[in-house]
Amino acid sequence: MSNDLYGLSRVVGEKGVLPQRARKLDPSLPCRDSEVLIDVESLNIDAASFKQIKGEVGGDPARIGARIQEIVLERGKMQNPVTGSGGMLIGRVKEIGAKHPARGQLQVGDRIATLVSLTLTPLVIEEVKAVHVDIDRLDIRGHALLFATGIFAKLPSDLPDTLALAALDVCGAPALVARYVRPGMTVAVLGAGKSGALCLAQARRNLESRGKLIAMDVSQPALDALTAIGLCDVALKVDATQGVDVMEAVSQATGGQLCDLVVNCASVGNTEMATILSVKDGGTAIFFSMATSFTTAALGAEGVGKDVTMLVGNGYVPGHASLTLALLRTEPALLQLFATRYV
Amino acid sequence: MSNDLYGLSRVVGEKGVLPQRARKLDPSLPCRDSEVLIDVESLNIDAASFKQIKGEVGGDPARIGARIQEIVLERGKMQNPVTGSGGMLIGRVKEIGAKHPARGQLQVGDRIATLVSLTLTPLVIEEVKAVHVDIDRLDIRGHALLFATGIFAKLPSDLPDTLALAALDVCGAPALVARYVRPGMTVAVLGAGKSGALCLAQARRNLESRGKLIAMDVSQPALDALTAIGLCDVALKVDATQGVDVMEAVSQATGGQLCDLVVNCASVGNTEMATILSVKDGGTAIFFSMATSFTTAALGAEGVGKDVTMLVGNGYVPGHASLTLALLRTEPALLQLFATRYV
Ligand SMILES: NC(=O)c1ccc[n+]([C@@H]2O[C@H](COP(=O)([O-])OP(=O)(O)OC[C@H]3O[C@@H](n4cnc5c(N)ncnc54)[C@H](OP(=O)(O)O)[C@@H]3O)[C@@H](O)[C@H]2O)c1
Ligand SMILES: NC(=O)c1ccc[n+]([C@@H]2O[C@H](COP(=O)([O-])OP(=O)(O)OC[C@H]3O[C@@H](n4cnc5c(N)ncnc54)[C@H](OP(=O)(O)O)[C@@H]3O)[C@@H](O)[C@H]2O)c1
Repeated sequence: MSNDLYGLSRVVGEKGVLPQRARKLDPSLPCRDSEVLIDVESLNIDAASFKQIKGEVGGDPARIGARIQEIVLERGKMQNPVTGSGGMLIGRVKEIGAKHPARGQLQVGDRIATLVSLTLTPLVIEEVKAVHVDIDRLDIRGHALLFATGIFAKLPSDLPDTLALAALDVCGAPALVARYVRPGMTVAVLGAGKSGALCLAQARRNLESRGKLIAMDVSQPALDALTAIGLCDVALKVDATQGVDVMEAVSQATGGQLCDLVVNCASVGNTEMATILSVKDGGTAIFFSMATSFTTAALGAEGVGKDVTMLVGNGYVPGHASLTLALLRTEPALLQLFATRYV
Repeated sequence: MSNDLYGLSRVVGEKGVLPQRARKLDPSLPCRDSEVLIDVESLNIDAASFKQIKGEVGGDPARIGARIQEIVLERGKMQNPVTGSGGMLIGRVKEIGAKHPARGQLQVGDRIATLVSLTLTPLVIEEVKAVHVDIDRLDIRGHALLFATGIFAKLPSDLPDTLALAALDVCGAPALVARYVRPGMTVAVLGAGKSGALCLAQARRNLESRGKLIAMDVSQPALDALTAIGLCDVALKVDATQGVDVMEAVSQATGGQLCDLVVNCASVGNTEMATILSVKDGGTAIFFSMATSFTTAALGAEGVGKDVTMLVGNGYVPGHASLTLALLRTEPALLQLFATRYV
């Protein structure tokens, strides 16, 4: 590889290890040919990581900031040594390497959010300017480097940052749904939260008023909010950990036919069987939930003799950021839902 | 559900729980409408489970048999309480329920192997006739019940049981590969063991002498055996846990193009990145390895910005057993390989 697409040359002391798994990255300047240099404005720390740090050093903003600065100094990236997780960042493009694929599409000065984790992003914090304890965010002065394969999104000027970030965080889900939904299908989304709402809105478009759209969640308020803005044809209040109950509810709602596609956006574990049992033979399941167990899905489908195509929800689909922002812009009710629930 | 497709009515005391997760099943006769009754000949205990029991009670065959009989008496199924795993069984069809979907296709007296786990199969052991400690097998007198969704295969009369079982154990893999390989593709199989060999043989057919077939394994003898019988165009000796090394080897073997399809049949963990990095943008990865981590795959693809369709290898594909046996029958060299390596 003459061109370092994956940032291997930024890994300190471990040959052939990708930046995400590396113990330490070298975030030093100058920016290399295949990189983008970012003037960082703020870091959005992963919720689990922020909580752990708060637990460790207490609620004092200064001490939280100092601990994060310490981690970044030590590792050359923001990867919580306890939770292993990172977050994302916002900043302005300062320099674009000659071989970076975004050359031409990005301009110096553009405001962007990185969509790859901070766990693989070389980072230097020069100064912590503020710690917003309520939203897990730090305003800083410093720089970061984005590799050629590191995905990002230009921040829209017509949407508040927090809202755009909330949507961009899960933008792979509606983009993958767009690939699989065709008019006339029966589609169910399990877990009607942030990504579930986006998946329903995208499925609604692809169905072109044919077929059936089912939203399932354990929370009646979440379902009511979606029903009120017309994001589903049927709302089923179910507990996704109860596979047989979910299957029976879906069977009843579909006249015994079950679904062509079930999209799992639940935030809890043990929801594989509800997903698999709700798909008709020959249908497809897409798992986005990070609590999905590979073996439970593989052995579960085999155990019930179900011919279901099971997809691991890839967080990256080309064009996912613009697709998601466009969805919000053209669906005022969805935008409103996001503004009230997820910001 | 008037028709109990999943055996829910056999679960003792836990409503809405599937037989696999149930603590206890009721294996009592008579055989119900949607079931098949099997006169059991032998139980193939899962390797991990057999080893645990041997460790617990010692190597004496009689004590191993007694312990297994005790578990089955207690749970109504053979599910090792420590490892959670089961195995499969061989027997003759004794009765076919009026509503069982195999009615017409199965005859009383047919010799079959169950392809669903013993962990969800109601079972009664009347007598342990022999314990074959070297091959994790028990010969017994007893009965088992197969649900409408419980998959099985008729045992061929032209192949030894052990050989047929070894192939049937992984028959979902070549059957799924058959769905995804088209002439002209570049296909790689990571892990050239039992299922890897079957996947290569099936891919070879679907490629119709166009495209390229790459076998990868850490073991040179395994690769040599496959090369000798023409099951691959290129054999790469790689360690699948070293993602970047594997990618570089594949890149070199494909003139920088990478693969349209990578099939992961490795028996170790930490092989997700090798799989993902070896796929070209827009390509597909199928994960069969039970050591696959869902989050590592999902976040890994996102982290390197790779547009790869990732499939969870479903152990059930309609017709998988006959496809696999046909593959062995028409490929004498593959049959020979199986007979020498996996029996
Ligand atoms: N790979 C990717 O690219 C990708 C993309 C999008 C999302 N994801 C993953 O998908 C998951 C969901 O993300 P999100 O942002 O949409 O989360 P979210 O906004 O919290 O939504 C999750 C929803 O699931 C519901 N839920 C919780 N327990 C349930 C149960 N037992 N039965 C039915 N519904 C239940 C929640 O209801 P309550 O609010 O009442 O708890 C909530 O409405 C996360 O694991 C996320 O990481 C991954
Ligand atoms: N879901 C399904 O339906 C399904 C179907 C088929 C298979 N599977 C799963 O797929 C996996 C493989 O099954 P199998 O029966 O084919 O096993 P197997 O016969 O043991 O083959 C595994 C192969 O992987 C090789 N290997 C081990 N470590 C490696 C490494 N670091 N790099 C490269 N190769 C390595 C092994 O080489 P050595 O012999 O030198 O160790 C062996 O040749 C298992 O987890 C199995 O459960 C699932």
